[in-house]
Amino acid sequence: MVKGNLVVGQSGGPTAVINNSLVGVIHQAMASDQIEGIWGMAHGIQGMLQEEFYDLRREAPLTLEILRNTPASALGTVRYRVKEEDYARLVEVMKKYNVRYFFYIGGNDSMDTTHKIDTVAKSVGYELYCIGVPKTIDNDLVLTDHCPGYGSAARFVASAIRNTAFDTEAMGDSGPIKLMEIMGRNAGWLTAAAALARAHEEDAPHLLYFPERPVSEEKLAADVEQVYNRYGYCVVGVSEGLRNEKGEDFGTAGPGDVDAFGHRAKLGVVEAVAEVIRKHLGIRARFDKPGYLQRSFAELQSPVDRDEAYQAGGEAVRAALRGETGKMVAFVRMPGPVYTVDMKLVPLEEVANRERHLPDEYINAEGNGVTPAFLDYARPLIGGPLPLYARLSKYMVPKR
Amino acid sequence: MVKGNLVVGQSGGPTAVINNSLVGVIHQAMASDQIEGIWGMAHGIQGMLQEEFYDLRREAPLTLEILRNTPASALGTVRYRVKEEDYARLVEVMKKYNVRYFFYIGGNDSMDTTHKIDTVAKSVGYELYCIGVPKTIDNDLVLTDHCPGYGSAARFVASAIRNTAFDTEAMGDSGPIKLMEIMGRNAGWLTAAAALARAHEEDAPHLLYFPERPVSEEKLAADVEQVYNRYGYCVVGVSEGLRNEKGEDFGTAGPGDVDAFGHRAKLGVVEAVAEVIRKHLGIRARFDKPGYLQRSFAELQSPVDRDEAYQAGGEAVRAALRGETGKMVAFVRMPGPVYTVDMKLVPLEEVANRERHLPDEYINAEGNGVTPAFLDYARPLIGGPLPLYARLSKYMVPKR
Repeated sequence: MVKGNLVVGQSGGPTAVINNSLVGVIHQAMASDQIEGIWGMAHGIQGMLQEEFYDLRREAPLTLEILRNTPASALGTVRYRVKEEDYARLVEVMKKYNVRYFFYIGGNDSMDTTHKIDTVAKSVGYELYCIGVPKTIDNDLVLTDHCPGYGSAARFVASAIRNTAFDTEAMGDSGPIKLMEIMGRNAGWLTAAAALARAHEEDAPHLLYFPERPVSEEKLAADVEQVYNRYGYCVVGVSEGLRNEKGEDFGTAGPGDVDAFGHRAKLGVVEAVAEVIRKHLGIRARFDKPGYLQRSFAELQSPVDRDEAYQAGGEAVRAALRGETGKMVAFVRMPGPVYTVDMKLVPLEEVANRERHLPDEYINAEGNGVTPAFLDYARPLIGGPLPLYARLSKYMVPKR
Repeated sequence: MVKGNLVVGQSGGPTAVINNSLVGVIHQAMASDQIEGIWGMAHGIQGMLQEEFYDLRREAPLTLEILRNTPASALGTVRYRVKEEDYARLVEVMKKYNVRYFFYIGGNDSMDTTHKIDTVAKSVGYELYCIGVPKTIDNDLVLTDHCPGYGSAARFVASAIRNTAFDTEAMGDSGPIKLMEIMGRNAGWLTAAAALARAHEEDAPHLLYFPERPVSEEKLAADVEQVYNRYGYCVVGVSEGLRNEKGEDFGTAGPGDVDAFGHRAKLGVVEAVAEVIRKHLGIRARFDKPGYLQRSFAELQSPVDRDEAYQAGGEAVRAALRGETGKMVAFVRMPGPVYTVDMKLVPLEEVANRERHLPDEYINAEGNGVTPAFLDYARPLIGGPLPLYARLSKYMVPKR
């Protein structure tokens, strides 16, 4: 095994636990004699192109420990899409700095980058070990049971919609319809996680709408009306990627959207759904757009997710030291009643640029909620039940 | 002291700790021989008008304990503004049900209602003890150091903006401007609380804009540009009640706001600020609108706030049993280096329908942030520091 330096980078949208994967890489690398420098790329692959590396061996152990509680990418992240001509340059930089171990924590774009670096290094005969560490709140990577980052985002979303639902229920007729816009432009995994807020049949969220199931204005309004008539209030989780039955984004159609210059002024998805409810039911819907809190709210890290993110970083280093390259760490759920996972390696090229959508068996027949199978899948990932809330039994005092 | 029944109600916008005041009333009432029924009004004063009361003595002790963790108003709340002709009816209902103790947990509208009930009862010679229990995330009640509900909302807002700020900092040039819209239409207390996220001079949030300080587009854009040039990113807390220098709401002015029918399509405040930044600086600003999460996120209850909300409920009952009426429980901060509060009673009529704005000494000279005096005021209310986060020291690897 060749001795040399290690680089690690973080890419794409941050998560609440992504630094756990970074620290997992650092801790495991420190235990190896093969690895000399342990370097972080500043803002992912951009740092490599600009030869900007942080010396992670010099960081205080306590800093690394506290980083595990700290949201977002401590190395900085990047949205830069690597160009074909960059790859030769990247391998050249690695030669110059004797980088022999390359770890990239990211989603499917990052796995594509890692795969291409591996391919180019092989083609020029440069000995390099490249391993991808999965990360995405969208949970849309293929060949893995789930992705680090998802469990914590799922816990936040379930908790957030439950809190706002209690608020909505309390308001009664003063504000009976509440919408929450949930991240995931192409995949409904995070929207589906909102269902983990429910303990009873009548609990919120009552309706969930996914990118995988386009819905017409009429159907959506009828769904809301039915829930409102039954329970007196209605809480709806709406994916930011929701489309109507014509495949158009919610929020692009309808009168009033063209401004004085003829520009089509796009409403946000949740504003568009509120407008549908106003138009069809004559009720003002209120809404929350927690936005980037969904991926950064570190107080609600899932302990399972946090631990798995750390383990995935360590496993990546162990795999590289076994001589593996061109692979991504993936999670395999073990059969049995107790949640346990194992890790394996999958080929980067089969992960790169592919998306895993919410499968049919996890979406109910109406296309407006999840199945029990989804709840069984997702519940262990949020790392324990949400805190217990109570309702009054409401024994009525007899009227006089 | 007259024996009789007690009613308690919750009114206005819920908070994350409002049920603590309810449970405080119940627990203290249970200790008294004077109080017979302990009843909750369904949806505040509306329940009284409709003679809908819940028998709270029949609730399980454990339910009450868990209610202390549960956000929003367990009795249901109401936005109904009591009409003059309702008051005679309310006192009539109280006579019919032998209600002798009336507790209303709410903001300044609710204190007005409680005051008027007290006045009408006195005018007809009906012996009734009416005490208001303060509650508002807006922290805008007069004659009290602060209001139960504010500390928890403040903790959520500080935490939320810190989390999203770490995300923004990590994004670098991929998304350097982040805005968060913060509740408080007329008062900037909650927006100011975002400053509690800062540990160092350079930390986010960098700019805060309050209803108390109108700001021009040009000034706001110049502020953002200055911060961005200095730190490479900029995080801004914007009150939902922000106005421009002409006193107009942000979001009503500007081209493109009039739709095809000539309707003035109001942008949200934070969307309007994002548009100002796009227009003046050519940068797309991202934003979060946590909305109702600010007042309902019970996982982030401030322990101080939670305890004070409970104490305020108990104190209201003790005051009524001492023969007080027409008063609100208020908090007095004791002098000295350690945060301690005492409770006192203030006349409802001096609280009713008045608002306490963020005072000048809590707003910086530029009108875009807070003073150290505000931080000293607010810090104890969130019940301990936010969890520790770390940044890498970023020792650079020498270039080769």
